[in-house]
Amino acid sequence: MQPIDFYFDFSSPYGYLASTRIDALAAKYGREVRWRPILLGATFKVTGLPPLPTVPLKGDYSRRDFLRSARFHGVAYRHPGVFPIASQAPARAFYWVERQDPVKAKMLAGALLEAYFTRDVNISNPSDTVRIAAGLGIDGTALEAALNDPAIKERLKAEVEQAIARGVFGSPFIFVDDEPFWGMDRFDQIERWLKEGGF
Amino acid sequence: MQPIDFYFDFSSPYGYLASTRIDALAAKYGREVRWRPILLGATFKVTGLPPLPTVPLKGDYSRRDFLRSARFHGVAYRHPGVFPIASQAPARAFYWVERQDPVKAKMLAGALLEAYFTRDVNISNPSDTVRIAAGLGIDGTALEAALNDPAIKERLKAEVEQAIARGVFGSPFIFVDDEPFWGMDRFDQIERWLKEGGF
Repeated sequence: MQPIDFYFDFSSPYGYLASTRIDALAAKYGREVRWRPILLGATFKVTGLPPLPTVPLKGDYSRRDFLRSARFHGVAYRHPGVFPIASQAPARAFYWVERQDPVKAKMLAGALLEAYFTRDVNISNPSDTVRIAAGLGIDGTALEAALNDPAIKERLKAEVEQAIARGVFGSPFIFVDDEPFWGMDRFDQIERWLKEGGF
Repeated sequence: MQPIDFYFDFSSPYGYLASTRIDALAAKYGREVRWRPILLGATFKVTGLPPLPTVPLKGDYSRRDFLRSARFHGVAYRHPGVFPIASQAPARAFYWVERQDPVKAKMLAGALLEAYFTRDVNISNPSDTVRIAAGLGIDGTALEAALNDPAIKERLKAEVEQAIARGVFGSPFIFVDDEPFWGMDRFDQIERWLKEGGF
């Protein structure tokens, strides 16, 4: 069976919430999940939409909803002091590690999201991303160099472009057999789709 | 116990889906629902957001999601030929009927939403709104005059302004004891809030 594609931005609270659930949901139906970090800034250029926190009324609501949704789903959450952040460093780190070890790349992504969303570590800093990676036994010196490697930059850019070509405009954004689902709040529809093969 | 406030635009597919469920959900917890038609156009002026169907990528996704969400919730849905529409006529009709008979106003709102979202009746036309109202035993001649009555226009305007002052920026938008919930996809959180008095 085709793996599920899970697109997210490391700076997205709903992406973080989804990251804590997507593998377990997929496993229940015998599916693997391919994690695909992207940069929402690039999608905003296509949609013309502003970043959520800057929108009058909706920005205030969203801050309340991040916290309430985390409580609702039983996920630890502390709203980061700096928010949103540019997420090139963690996203590049992910793709660099993934080339060698896809399982470790997912572990790294989980550790980075947890650091940002529960311990207020600003993972947009390459040094913080490298430190967290090193804590998982990843070669910090090599990773630090990789974050500025044109090939890795290009790789992330290509992933973002491919995501946009598939219609991705937000985070989380999930494909099950090419059916697109946007948002943590589509998990109930995703589960039914997995169970029934569509509806 | 305080009634639940249910804000919606007659042109909103997710507002329509929510309208088919909100009273039953509230009744389960001994609550009444106050239906509050509003005009999303006015909220867009405050948020600076464009109407959903016009947004690149997100507009296409939303059309797919309207249909899929209707199937998921088991609600009849046919995407209207003219969409979105200006919803002054149905909203004014609602507030005019509500002054005399709140129960009938809700029946009228349900009939108007059903006409627009299952039979492609363009309820932005005052004549269509009046015809549907007349079918429910409402005085069509008096309603037709009311739709241009400055007092009714003012009443709708005041409701929209009050909604915006409470933070409403989308449809459906629901308040349970002043806790705001945006979207049909917050019904699971609304239910828990009603059950537990917060979480």
